[in-house]
Amino acid sequence: MVLRLRLYSALYPSWGPICLFPRSFASCSGNPASCCTMPQLGLLHGRAWAVLFGQLRRPPGAVCIRAVHSHSQVAEAALATQLKPHQEKSNFIIKTPKGTRDLSPEQMVVREKILDMVVSCFKRHGAKGLDTPAFELKEMLTEKYGEDSGLVYDLKDQGGELLSLRYDLTVPFARYLAMNKVKKMKRYHVGKVWRRESPTIAQGRYREFCQCDFDIAGQFDPMIPDAECLKIMCEILSGLQLGDFLIKVNDRRILDGIFAVCGVPESKFHAICSSVDKLDKMSWKDVRHEMVAKKGLAAEVADRIWDYVQCHGGVSLVQQMFQDPRLSQNKQALEGLGDLKLLFEYLTLFGIAEKISFDLSLARGLDYYTGVIYEAVLLQTPAHAEEEPRNVGSVAAGGRYDGLVGMFDPKGHNVPCVGLSIGVERIFSIVEQRMKTFGEKIRTTETQVFVATPQKNFLQERLKLIAELWDAGIKAELMYKNNPKLLTQLHYCENTGIPLVVIIGEQELKEGVIKLRSVANREEVAITRENLVAEIQKRLSES
Amino acid sequence: MVLRLRLYSALYPSWGPICLFPRSFASCSGNPASCCTMPQLGLLHGRAWAVLFGQLRRPPGAVCIRAVHSHSQVAEAALATQLKPHQEKSNFIIKTPKGTRDLSPEQMVVREKILDMVVSCFKRHGAKGLDTPAFELKEMLTEKYGEDSGLVYDLKDQGGELLSLRYDLTVPFARYLAMNKVKKMKRYHVGKVWRRESPTIAQGRYREFCQCDFDIAGQFDPMIPDAECLKIMCEILSGLQLGDFLIKVNDRRILDGIFAVCGVPESKFHAICSSVDKLDKMSWKDVRHEMVAKKGLAAEVADRIWDYVQCHGGVSLVQQMFQDPRLSQNKQALEGLGDLKLLFEYLTLFGIAEKISFDLSLARGLDYYTGVIYEAVLLQTPAHAEEEPRNVGSVAAGGRYDGLVGMFDPKGHNVPCVGLSIGVERIFSIVEQRMKTFGEKIRTTETQVFVATPQKNFLQERLKLIAELWDAGIKAELMYKNNPKLLTQLHYCENTGIPLVVIIGEQELKEGVIKLRSVANREEVAITRENLVAEIQKRLSES
Repeated sequence: MVLRLRLYSALYPSWGPICLFPRSFASCSGNPASCCTMPQLGLLHGRAWAVLFGQLRRPPGAVCIRAVHSHSQVAEAALATQLKPHQEKSNFIIKTPKGTRDLSPEQMVVREKILDMVVSCFKRHGAKGLDTPAFELKEMLTEKYGEDSGLVYDLKDQGGELLSLRYDLTVPFARYLAMNKVKKMKRYHVGKVWRRESPTIAQGRYREFCQCDFDIAGQFDPMIPDAECLKIMCEILSGLQLGDFLIKVNDRRILDGIFAVCGVPESKFHAICSSVDKLDKMSWKDVRHEMVAKKGLAAEVADRIWDYVQCHGGVSLVQQMFQDPRLSQNKQALEGLGDLKLLFEYLTLFGIAEKISFDLSLARGLDYYTGVIYEAVLLQTPAHAEEEPRNVGSVAAGGRYDGLVGMFDPKGHNVPCVGLSIGVERIFSIVEQRMKTFGEKIRTTETQVFVATPQKNFLQERLKLIAELWDAGIKAELMYKNNPKLLTQLHYCENTGIPLVVIIGEQELKEGVIKLRSVANREEVAITRENLVAEIQKRLSES
Repeated sequence: MVLRLRLYSALYPSWGPICLFPRSFASCSGNPASCCTMPQLGLLHGRAWAVLFGQLRRPPGAVCIRAVHSHSQVAEAALATQLKPHQEKSNFIIKTPKGTRDLSPEQMVVREKILDMVVSCFKRHGAKGLDTPAFELKEMLTEKYGEDSGLVYDLKDQGGELLSLRYDLTVPFARYLAMNKVKKMKRYHVGKVWRRESPTIAQGRYREFCQCDFDIAGQFDPMIPDAECLKIMCEILSGLQLGDFLIKVNDRRILDGIFAVCGVPESKFHAICSSVDKLDKMSWKDVRHEMVAKKGLAAEVADRIWDYVQCHGGVSLVQQMFQDPRLSQNKQALEGLGDLKLLFEYLTLFGIAEKISFDLSLARGLDYYTGVIYEAVLLQTPAHAEEEPRNVGSVAAGGRYDGLVGMFDPKGHNVPCVGLSIGVERIFSIVEQRMKTFGEKIRTTETQVFVATPQKNFLQERLKLIAELWDAGIKAELMYKNNPKLLTQLHYCENTGIPLVVIIGEQELKEGVIKLRSVANREEVAITRENLVAEIQKRLSES
């Protein structure tokens, strides 16, 4: 039952009508919308509520002021947070949602540099740009992410289509290909993706992050596009100067072949693959324990697996595996090994074979990979002695996924795909850390010229002058003050890295000149008004 | 009641267990989850259902096969859509969500051009970049958008914080300022925003779209930042070559002053302002009718309003309004007029006063504006005679909003702000239309060189060669075929606009040269392997 009583105005005139219905009870019988507009006393302890309520039910003259008063203090405290909704909201802390962050101007400069470098590499390889919406119809994303499906952000059902925020850029790409019946495409896509990661799993793992993807869709002669993906990863990682790196390569069919010949029951393939995937974070001892004790694998089977997954090497390891008595009996594994052999040939021609390691313990998480898989890791020795070694996991990864487009096509027509994703957030934090360690100062604006005056009443001249500079394409600023002090203006230039100042004053106006001052060496020259723009452009192109 | 019967396997072995509960009835008494996994016959017409059901209730020998058969055909058709869940899902259409779209490679090229131009203008004016998350805590966005609050996309409550997708870039900016206690900042922000617009309201209005915002936050001498915002709008609209444009300017205080002196009750200000806002789409006759008949305004008050809001002009109109016997009695209006007078002075010094119109009918939708407001519209005469005149509404808008940051600050400390937003989607559709009208072909890749061969078994040489080009920073592609035909490769270059081809074959290999061919004029020269990169770079820089 809802009771709406007007508190006796003599007691607490500011309260107005309040709803005495405690929040712990079920819904109001009245119109919930109007109910919610009134402050609710429901925050009170049941007992205080009961007493206060009891007093308020009495006829005015019979109210025990003291009883009301004491419990009313509790009520008032509870109400205070609601009486002034825009001030002193005790729960109102200004922050971004968990797992997300703003990017400051300094961070934006670093990000822009990284993204420019990545995109120009993609363009160097002939990729076209593409963009897809931030959210997809929920049904487009279901059954695509295996165990990770619970990490997808859903939108509230507000009466329209059921939507989810995209979890990666690969499934939207497959949806685009199927939707537009595209058979061949080489595209790149830079965009945000969203995942409801548990914050306890991995420190520094964001819920909103940027991905840079490059993918080649289409039926082609084997391993040429796959090799180009690896070449792109090498170019980007070298170009970003992150130090020494390694790209681990494996193949889903080889992994499945290993499991088969070692005696893993087919129903456990997925679970065991998941365990193998943890070898980059956990010791074999712990992984083995997980396989045997938690996933019910026979101990000798686990040990056989270890014989394989501890191996890593170059193309000679591929050859060795071809000769392996057990593995060579498995058709799938032989296919995978054959593709890897061809891949290594191409990587050698590309000049990057020494960066690639055939690593039998590599098992990428996502379900949709069907062939070659790869993952780039930075090698632990930091680029510079003073830096802390950072373990940030992989910085880029990808693989072949031949069955994903077919999941969208009603007739199941496949478009084979291979691609890669650059983990910009991880790279970003490394670069940011490196810049902090070396005290590199980052300019957050690109302003080239500051328009200043030492005198009062020169705003009009400054406005005219700066418009001339802007119209000539020169990046310029001025102080938003009618009468700024010269020293303030010069300090502003020094602090923000603006290289040139144009100074206008009485003298200059009489003589028809502007003073052009270099902030770095403080030298000033007088330039005529007509020559000012040309002189500035000359100086800027020389520096 | 739920009835689960096994259809007689002799009749229809493929059906298995089906739920005969018609969908029109209320919820199952059984476990809804298991119920939903069975195909439901509920799609059947009530009568067919009843007959079929009647037959199925009989003991096996008494079933009338003919009756079952005829009605079963209906049933089978109904079930067919459910028997094979991943194929022939009658409801499974691949599409993007309502109000959203993919951007094709051609569209990406156009968008990139526009955004580059806009951002370089922002940088020319000394703005720093900023980025905020796609979603905010729901409480950050509540009570910020007035009547439009219902258009905000909420995220589903999945057990964590309640979140909403950002509706614009201004409220996140104000949140950032309050959160970081920033008092002065000049920032730009390019990003997507999301609004659950009703598709019936305005054709072509998207639910996901890109905004480019520039804002100046801080307490400064009056109207200088405001004038710079208008200068930026002019630079961008001129630079995009969209034809002639006009920027309408007004002031919230002048509007409120007009309403006050005309006799509008203060409680109706907001509603009447909303009607005035429609004058750009509706005639005064219709707007007047809305004010009088629907919003209960006295007819003579409406007519007085018309005396004002039909006025538009230059700075002389500002002067005229200062002299207006009624308006000059209103303190608010005088403040607004004073600011506009100062604004026009600065705009004249910036050289853009002739693009600006003081328009008393301008009333921007968003609640948070407190002072000057402005809106840029393209003038109806198209830039070229062959083009269709497009009415796309405003292409850029903004204003001063001095109270928004204070809504976030617990102590209500204000940071005055002024800013602008460029409507890139509208500009984008104009530019796209223009390019179609003029048959401009858009290259979707930037590839400069194609590596080709006329002969078989030259893949290895092509791979080696292309890696040399990539390593020298040259944008290059090759066909992903072991043995492609020369003509196919050359056609590919012509179709995609690649200007140069390097051709390697037996002859060239023997002689230690590469053939360099111009796609445009088909001329070929032989270049030594060592000089190839330099020659290509020379040719590319000359073109």
